[in-house]
Amino acid sequence: MSAKTSLSGFPEWLPGERIVEQWILDQLRTTFELHGFAPIETRAVETVEELQRKGETSKEIYLLRRLQEEASPKRSSKERTLGLHFDLTVPFARYVMDNAADLAFPFRRYQIQKVWRGERPQDGRFREFTQADIDIVGDGQLAFHHEVELPLIMVEALDRLGIPPITVLVNNRRVVQGFCEGIGVTSIDEALRSIDKLDKIGADAVTDLMEEAGIPRDTGKRLLELAAIRGGDLDVIDRVRALGVSTPLLDQGLEELAAVLTAANRRAPGRVIADLKITRGLDYYTGTVYETSLAGHEDLGSICSGGRYDTLATVGKRTYPGVGLSIGVSRLVSRILSAGMLTASRPVPTCVLVTVTDEESRVDADDIAATLRSRGIPTEVSASCAKFGKQIKYADKRGIPFVWFVDEDGNHAVKDIRSGEQISADATTWQPPAEDLYPHVRAAATTSDGRDV
Amino acid sequence: MSAKTSLSGFPEWLPGERIVEQWILDQLRTTFELHGFAPIETRAVETVEELQRKGETSKEIYLLRRLQEEASPKRSSKERTLGLHFDLTVPFARYVMDNAADLAFPFRRYQIQKVWRGERPQDGRFREFTQADIDIVGDGQLAFHHEVELPLIMVEALDRLGIPPITVLVNNRRVVQGFCEGIGVTSIDEALRSIDKLDKIGADAVTDLMEEAGIPRDTGKRLLELAAIRGGDLDVIDRVRALGVSTPLLDQGLEELAAVLTAANRRAPGRVIADLKITRGLDYYTGTVYETSLAGHEDLGSICSGGRYDTLATVGKRTYPGVGLSIGVSRLVSRILSAGMLTASRPVPTCVLVTVTDEESRVDADDIAATLRSRGIPTEVSASCAKFGKQIKYADKRGIPFVWFVDEDGNHAVKDIRSGEQISADATTWQPPAEDLYPHVRAAATTSDGRDV
Repeated sequence: MSAKTSLSGFPEWLPGERIVEQWILDQLRTTFELHGFAPIETRAVETVEELQRKGETSKEIYLLRRLQEEASPKRSSKERTLGLHFDLTVPFARYVMDNAADLAFPFRRYQIQKVWRGERPQDGRFREFTQADIDIVGDGQLAFHHEVELPLIMVEALDRLGIPPITVLVNNRRVVQGFCEGIGVTSIDEALRSIDKLDKIGADAVTDLMEEAGIPRDTGKRLLELAAIRGGDLDVIDRVRALGVSTPLLDQGLEELAAVLTAANRRAPGRVIADLKITRGLDYYTGTVYETSLAGHEDLGSICSGGRYDTLATVGKRTYPGVGLSIGVSRLVSRILSAGMLTASRPVPTCVLVTVTDEESRVDADDIAATLRSRGIPTEVSASCAKFGKQIKYADKRGIPFVWFVDEDGNHAVKDIRSGEQISADATTWQPPAEDLYPHVRAAATTSDGRDV
Repeated sequence: MSAKTSLSGFPEWLPGERIVEQWILDQLRTTFELHGFAPIETRAVETVEELQRKGETSKEIYLLRRLQEEASPKRSSKERTLGLHFDLTVPFARYVMDNAADLAFPFRRYQIQKVWRGERPQDGRFREFTQADIDIVGDGQLAFHHEVELPLIMVEALDRLGIPPITVLVNNRRVVQGFCEGIGVTSIDEALRSIDKLDKIGADAVTDLMEEAGIPRDTGKRLLELAAIRGGDLDVIDRVRALGVSTPLLDQGLEELAAVLTAANRRAPGRVIADLKITRGLDYYTGTVYETSLAGHEDLGSICSGGRYDTLATVGKRTYPGVGLSIGVSRLVSRILSAGMLTASRPVPTCVLVTVTDEESRVDADDIAATLRSRGIPTEVSASCAKFGKQIKYADKRGIPFVWFVDEDGNHAVKDIRSGEQISADATTWQPPAEDLYPHVRAAATTSDGRDV
């Protein structure tokens, strides 16, 4: 029951759905602020050079041109080609470099914005979607413990939604790269990109892909042995070592992976597990990488991903290493809505509709409404002075729970149109039940008496 | 002290500034919801046909093309040219037509989003900016009283910010069009567009412009007599009539203008005044039109504009007339920040920094922080276990008011680093003063002892 979309890949929601999305964004914001992340937004556009600064990207970029420019094709040489940002990390890195002098490091920020990718729209892949990111960036250095802190904040943020639990899957780029080095694989980017497709295309096709990239089948199979390792305790480290490869980079990566697992198991047992096939493909990560799966909705793919990056932001000799995670809000909301995981109690903020007897008395209805609003109660005045029954019908159709009216003797009353219950009321003192004041968002998995729906 | 912007026309804010902007958006949202407006968002892009559906537009449109498309120029014939929306009214009209079956009319919605215009950036004109819109749209008809309701909601919303008062300037398209008809002007669009420039270029230049468009100078001067009329009471209606022109359209327009003034003067005396030079240029309005000036900042131009439109959304014989107003949030925020009208008490959400003695005890600091957060207190744990003084310095630099620490004997204490006051504390019960819990936004016009700054 989502909004009709006349353009594939550009999702829109009906008002009741947007209330759910907005509530989710409010929950994320609350969690991020509780953990001391400051809000920023960056412009939607970057120069094309900036978007491609880290070299090849698998993200399809939308470029902008002005319509009026087409008529007079003489492009001002000063105007640079702009593109829409495809994530919030690249713009954030640019923002940090632009404003380093005015920021205190380590700088903790959250950023909730739309991003755009010109990809072919398909199952859960949108061309326009909202991301909710947290990153911590240091000046020159960044302590390792932030790589444990960040995924646990995302667990807390998503737990707050009352949807099925997420599991954070972690790996470390140094493990994969070190392992590649140890077995003589030089085309590491190709290896990372191939392994990244394992869940989608299967082991055989990945071996084929790697062979095309010059990685012999036997070597490719060893990489797949690594990629098959998965588990929540330190046993996974031993299983990697048992593959008989050792390089300084691999050893450093395993040490870091072990540290993440140990600390995460202490603070949130079972919520973070190692999964050695996680690589984050072509992205700019250099250490720990994260993906996240939603229990019962693994088909959705990762709903929260990220990692540690050392060189994304560099000005001269100054580097700003960081670690960040990004929730794919639109993908998550789309599933939450289509699976009916969360619903809004009504599609309008309005708690009370003040009825109008005739246009002359509209000013009195306006006064009643103003009094209720001054006390924080969302109120509208009936658009028409149709018959009382028709005004109630209007409220009912919009899901407004209460109707306010004044009888011939000037007595005020309020009617709960769900129960039909009606009481005398005074706009300066009447209070609706707390759960009716604003639309509330609730898990739809069970009815109020606990039965599954 | 705003963020460094490396692209002209695309403003960005530092964290403390974004806290002010976010607070402003929260206030607007609260007011809109108190008045029963439901939230929606529309996609950032529309087809170019949709953006130009109402014919010529003065807005410069950004078109999109995929970067990868350039390499293979064979454009799929099915792919339509997309552009970024230049306002929120055109997309809203399209959304209403797409989803009419799922909406209850009159439909009240608010929408707070970025829009883009490829204009030359100048004083207060941005290429990317946030708008906050409210609209009420009817199915086939829409009662006139909404044309009084909407500007008063905007007055209430902006009053809540604690900035100088706004004045809503109203006119009615029917008055200008009827007057044009009455004095024999046929190029009404040209006349509207010329008058719209009166404040910017002056009466003589407007007369010249109109002459170029085929409107004789004498006739043009009569139009300027109309445009010079301005006032808050019904006297303005008589002054228009005194110009000796009468047509059915003009008379209807004057009646509507009088009704808006009468009702507005009753509910918010002095806040809405008639200004006959307001035309909204090429926009799609058909009745009442609005602009808004901020006291003491008239040079900023209108910060909230809109009007009544009858034919923006039409499907077959079905039309959806509406009335809407749009706040230019970025323009307003830019001035609020540069003039120092509002400031945030600190640039981070963090209320408490929990210090760390050594990395081994970080887990204990994490526990204290988790306890404080579970009680709604924004808390971070010190990134380093540097000397106590250095950790306090870090808090001070970020504006964090409280530092939590555990002494050698295991006693917990919290220190207000502004006053130096230090007390024993328990994370399960300690509560910061309400005004310190989150950063708060305050008017900077006077100091706490009431003196002007």
